Amino acid sequence: MLEGSENTLKVAQQGFEYFTHGLKTGDWSQFLSMLTEDFCFWFPIGQFHGLNVGKDKAEAFFQYVSECFKGGLTVTLDRVTGNETTVVFEFRDEGLLFGEHYKNRVAVSFDVRGEKICGYREYFGSDGKSN
Amino acid sequence: MLEGSENTLKVAQQGFEYFTHGLKTGDWSQFLSMLTEDFCFWFPIGQFHGLNVGKDKAEAFFQYVSECFKGGLTVTLDRVTGNETTVVFEFRDEGLLFGEHYKNRVAVSFDVRGEKICGYREYFGSDGKSN
Repeated sequence: MLEGSENTLKVAQQGFEYFTHGLKTGDWSQFLSMLTEDFCFWFPIGQFHGLNVGKDKAEAFFQYVSECFKGGLTVTLDRVTGNETTVVFEFRDEGLLFGEHYKNRVAVSFDVRGEKICGYREYFGSDGKSN
Repeated sequence: MLEGSENTLKVAQQGFEYFTHGLKTGDWSQFLSMLTEDFCFWFPIGQFHGLNVGKDKAEAFFQYVSECFKGGLTVTLDRVTGNETTVVFEFRDEGLLFGEHYKNRVAVSFDVRGEKICGYREYFGSDGKSN
């Protein structure tokens, strides 16, 4: 069994793999299965702006994301940093937002508890038009 | 002498201390002294949006930041994650932007080379009105 930051990194990396699969395909089942019931997340803009509490809210959010990006979003991972409880992924993404070209630079920060993800914060590094 | 990720964390933490001092006081001299000549940074919005190359550009940028936030910005650090070359700081900030109340959630990612900071990426987690 892995301990501390090593387990956190392993769980977060599995979560990020499922997260990018969700962004690409719209199938969020694997990612959602990794979330704790009390999962909460922060999002920078729009109808989910700010703090969102509970797994139900997360399900609604990720479904909404895939409605916005019907053809899926492609992710290019640039950097991964971590500590005992948290892992941050810096990446660029690209796709069609309601049919219009979309590009961004993003940092997502996953909080890990045991084998699950209990929190998530998203940050935008660009304007949705370039990355 | 510290090696690898330990040195990176130490250098980045010193840089972040000078960075928050700059945000608070408008005095960027210590932070600028830690940047490599080929320092480059990414910023999400406005006239410095995207990639900015060179220490001169950084000087202009940080002076501009302190003109926008004349009374300074107060920073509350929430999390620090790192690897061999990069450290990410997640924080909330608050102040007056051209006299109007400003709040944001921010992630900044510092790339370290030796005892200096060679790159920086900023990401916004909120809308400038709440954090």
